[in-house]
Amino acid sequence: MVKEREDQQDVQSELDQAQRRKPWQRYLEASLGLRNYWYPALFSRELPEDHMRAEIIAGERLFFKRIDGKVYCVEDRCIHRGVPFSPRPECYTDNTLTCWFHGFTYDWRTGKLVQILTEEDSALLGKVGIKAYPTQEVGETIFVYIGDGAPHDIREDAQPRLFDADLVVEPLVRYKIKCNWRVAAENGFDAAHIYGHRDWVGFRRGGLTAYPLGTYPSSKDIVRVLEEDGKPKGVLKRDDTQVYAAEIDGVDIRVEGYPKDAPRVRHEPRETEVSCFMPAGLQVVGFPKRGMVHFEWYVPIDDDHHMYTILQGGYAKTPEEREAFKRECREVLGPLVWNEPGKEPAGFNNFDSFGRKWTHHAYAKEDWWHRERLFKPDYIIMQWRMLVAKHARAIQTWGNWQKPDEDDIPQVP
Amino acid sequence: MVKEREDQQDVQSELDQAQRRKPWQRYLEASLGLRNYWYPALFSRELPEDHMRAEIIAGERLFFKRIDGKVYCVEDRCIHRGVPFSPRPECYTDNTLTCWFHGFTYDWRTGKLVQILTEEDSALLGKVGIKAYPTQEVGETIFVYIGDGAPHDIREDAQPRLFDADLVVEPLVRYKIKCNWRVAAENGFDAAHIYGHRDWVGFRRGGLTAYPLGTYPSSKDIVRVLEEDGKPKGVLKRDDTQVYAAEIDGVDIRVEGYPKDAPRVRHEPRETEVSCFMPAGLQVVGFPKRGMVHFEWYVPIDDDHHMYTILQGGYAKTPEEREAFKRECREVLGPLVWNEPGKEPAGFNNFDSFGRKWTHHAYAKEDWWHRERLFKPDYIIMQWRMLVAKHARAIQTWGNWQKPDEDDIPQVP
Amino acid sequence: MVKEREDQQDVQSELDQAQRRKPWQRYLEASLGLRNYWYPALFSRELPEDHMRAEIIAGERLFFKRIDGKVYCVEDRCIHRGVPFSPRPECYTDNTLTCWFHGFTYDWRTGKLVQILTEEDSALLGKVGIKAYPTQEVGETIFVYIGDGAPHDIREDAQPRLFDADLVVEPLVRYKIKCNWRVAAENGFDAAHIYGHRDWVGFRRGGLTAYPLGTYPSSKDIVRVLEEDGKPKGVLKRDDTQVYAAEIDGVDIRVEGYPKDAPRVRHEPRETEVSCFMPAGLQVVGFPKRGMVHFEWYVPIDDDHHMYTILQGGYAKTPEEREAFKRECREVLGPLVWNEPGKEPAGFNNFDSFGRKWTHHAYAKEDWWHRERLFKPDYIIMQWRMLVAKHARAIQTWGNWQKPDEDDIPQVP
Repeated sequence: MVKEREDQQDVQSELDQAQRRKPWQRYLEASLGLRNYWYPALFSRELPEDHMRAEIIAGERLFFKRIDGKVYCVEDRCIHRGVPFSPRPECYTDNTLTCWFHGFTYDWRTGKLVQILTEEDSALLGKVGIKAYPTQEVGETIFVYIGDGAPHDIREDAQPRLFDADLVVEPLVRYKIKCNWRVAAENGFDAAHIYGHRDWVGFRRGGLTAYPLGTYPSSKDIVRVLEEDGKPKGVLKRDDTQVYAAEIDGVDIRVEGYPKDAPRVRHEPRETEVSCFMPAGLQVVGFPKRGMVHFEWYVPIDDDHHMYTILQGGYAKTPEEREAFKRECREVLGPLVWNEPGKEPAGFNNFDSFGRKWTHHAYAKEDWWHRERLFKPDYIIMQWRMLVAKHARAIQTWGNWQKPDEDDIPQVP
Repeated sequence: MVKEREDQQDVQSELDQAQRRKPWQRYLEASLGLRNYWYPALFSRELPEDHMRAEIIAGERLFFKRIDGKVYCVEDRCIHRGVPFSPRPECYTDNTLTCWFHGFTYDWRTGKLVQILTEEDSALLGKVGIKAYPTQEVGETIFVYIGDGAPHDIREDAQPRLFDADLVVEPLVRYKIKCNWRVAAENGFDAAHIYGHRDWVGFRRGGLTAYPLGTYPSSKDIVRVLEEDGKPKGVLKRDDTQVYAAEIDGVDIRVEGYPKDAPRVRHEPRETEVSCFMPAGLQVVGFPKRGMVHFEWYVPIDDDHHMYTILQGGYAKTPEEREAFKRECREVLGPLVWNEPGKEPAGFNNFDSFGRKWTHHAYAKEDWWHRERLFKPDYIIMQWRMLVAKHARAIQTWGNWQKPDEDDIPQVP
Repeated sequence: MVKEREDQQDVQSELDQAQRRKPWQRYLEASLGLRNYWYPALFSRELPEDHMRAEIIAGERLFFKRIDGKVYCVEDRCIHRGVPFSPRPECYTDNTLTCWFHGFTYDWRTGKLVQILTEEDSALLGKVGIKAYPTQEVGETIFVYIGDGAPHDIREDAQPRLFDADLVVEPLVRYKIKCNWRVAAENGFDAAHIYGHRDWVGFRRGGLTAYPLGTYPSSKDIVRVLEEDGKPKGVLKRDDTQVYAAEIDGVDIRVEGYPKDAPRVRHEPRETEVSCFMPAGLQVVGFPKRGMVHFEWYVPIDDDHHMYTILQGGYAKTPEEREAFKRECREVLGPLVWNEPGKEPAGFNNFDSFGRKWTHHAYAKEDWWHRERLFKPDYIIMQWRMLVAKHARAIQTWGNWQKPDEDDIPQVP
């Protein structure tokens, strides 16, 4: 017990000091996200052959097309008059995109201006172009590289289990939330917010153990900061403290069904293993049931919004097993995790959407980054912030982009 | 007549000088309201036992609960992650409020952090907390003290008749208007804007004398500035000039039904007595009929909005008399003063809501505080501004609060 | 061919230099429009005798009334409390406007304060007033002079054909578009954006020649800059280069119905003659059919909006001919040019509305004025910018006006 108490004081005093010193300054500047990273932009099924789709990531307006199976992505803005292509896209040939306004024609693969339909032999041809973004498909998801120069290996920028042999995935949802991506990431990785999830229907239905009020790692040495060269940078937590009861004003508050005489707090490792990876992805092993992996991302759209992107993963060897898993996701496991907002019963992560929406204002406008009061379970969040501040390849800025008004966000009609 | 003319010149030249010198500088800075004052927040009936409700006053987000009959109020923002409690309030014990996110638990009476349900023996307990606001109920209305330190006596901060023996009140309406509170207060106290009220159905139905086009005090000595120590600070006007007719381009414009040969202007004291009190309340004796008192407030919400709060008052000795008065208010007198916007006939104060809405833009954005052109009836408004500038205990600032977007305003579901 | 190539190099290198040097600095500052010019405010039919109407032009809030056939216009803001008159206009006599709030009464003809209904013998009378704006009606359109001092001759400020003998006009539409007026004017005058119009139903139905992909003047000497003293300042283009086909990736892109073996580019003058005049008007001779004149304006409302105002013109000698022309406009030619947005088939200029809407964001927020990449057909736009920068009488600024929120824009109920 003495040891435990010392540990706690350690963690708390380090938290207190860190809050004053803020050894994660670069993180505070990253309101638009990190630069020179891969981000999940779309689910593969959202972009069938020959289809086009516009998205905004980290403030940059992107335009995607699938050509002969491969996904291409260019800047959604013509060099000439600055209009987006997506509200009226035109493609005369397999590999080109023509602007609806004056016929400026670009190569989807390189972004180069290859023709202008309205000027003979334009002097601009071959000299200018729009940005072309590297893309890759992994786990039925289209990733795009937001950055400069040659992209890093995507295996450094995504949750490691996404590359597991025999992994099978089922895309669940992409949902735009008014909340900065950092607040969202911290919410996803948050140890203690399981408290807000306690009414989740899955705790009763699912195969999970009885839920505690809160859970967190009791000491520093069971938190692992993953910062090996050439590997994804992240923080891995394994909660070993489970709070099942607490007293308020002499009243014993106890998890439903938890025995009256059992100890309020138990120390035992939980089955789920949660890790948060740069740039903005979470990996939860054992959720929503044993043997599964839950992937989610908090893709920055602008400083006030992120795209909450969820992928369910499992393991299967045969095509039949794979199809069975995907069907189970669609019919049972998916709705358990995310239900259409407003529909009952709420999915597990619907609560997180609620939590983030209500956290945004204080962080965005009331300087909560400097006024927040962290507690012991936030130790892992402190680690995450320091990891990002230390390893971020670059911090995204608006550059030559600016946030469009809601009615100026381009979409393919 | 010579004397009258001199008086007018006096008033006008003082107005002209004041407009140039602006001897009410602190008033100009008070866009968010005055600090260290009591404000009416809710009608008592809006907060039954055990109910909770969120309001914003002077930029501060407040959360109210009635416990054992008494009203408590705390800051609607958790110290941890800055979320408001109100979108999902949780109370495990009589006197505590628990945050839905991580179980931070506060005492409603003191704001102190008394427990965290998700951390064992948190080092934060007893050390930190949220702000608890003093409250009081007077005249079926819940008042809250926005300020620092021990509150002043509420009798200094409200219209004096509110504390009359045998007073009986009936709450009428709380209505949010897009208009700064100062513009609203000046509109309520405004002598000459009776002009805009001239179509009011009550002038025909009610027991009031024929209405003039305009009415105002003719000289300084019948305006009383109330600034006695320990008493509410206010300005009291008793109009003695009634304009019943005027000529435009040779056309005689005359109040409906006013005799053709009667003098255009009459000098006689009016029955109603109007006074405006700090921080933001009006008291009208004899409205909407003799023997009644009309109370209204312009409670600052933020710099662009106020809550228009109206209470009807009368006098009664027995429970039967009291109930009869309240019934008359609900059935007859209330709708005469405020009708649901859009419904006919409009209530008296619906016009004021219209007037304020259209005054806000010029004062808020076009610097009308410096460009306005005041006239003689505005003399009392000049007095009001100087009173506030002189006596305001403090000027409210945003402090660590900021204005939420419309979709980020918290409410109990 | 060698000559042509040299010309092109000439034009292109001048464009390239100009883009770097920006010899149209004053134009870049004119986000609110030009000052000391006549603007079309309303169609005559929109303001019948005795009617009133509010409009915003170049940030100034205007209030119009027709009295005995003549149109008057005053500032829509009372000097006293800054409210607009238009939400509840009151006129006791033929020539006066009374404020609904406190009875301040102005002369429509001069703006002078002539009476205050709520104060006897106000000292303000005759000393102060609101701005009265000069108006004129030309071509069934009400023009207003936004500026200071005596207005210039309206013949200097409008398209010259508007004053032609035997001209007959039919007002078509006034439509508010979220786009700065300069972007709109450049779009209207734009040589090459005919590309976007190529699906226009009128090209098939109408009497026009087969449409090219793009069209523009091939050399400087066929662009005329009109800057004679005392005449409207403008730029006149006569396109002599028609691009009918172009190659992309070896694929021949050819106008529908254009012969396979015909040359891709033809050099011949087009029938339509397009000129853009200061402050913000276009004149197209021969559109939408031979013998007609199309007039349109991009009237600045604020820096983010313009009013797209279209007038169709033709020539007729007798009343019967005039009526026949107007009927043809209403039934056939009007819908060809502008159809209710969303309705099929789209009118010619509906595409321009679409184009401008999508151009606004980049110019307004992403500094496209400095980042745009112009091409040869933009040579005439460069001339337009330089003309405006050189000749603008004054650049409009907000002055004592500010942009109202959408719900604060005044309208006569």
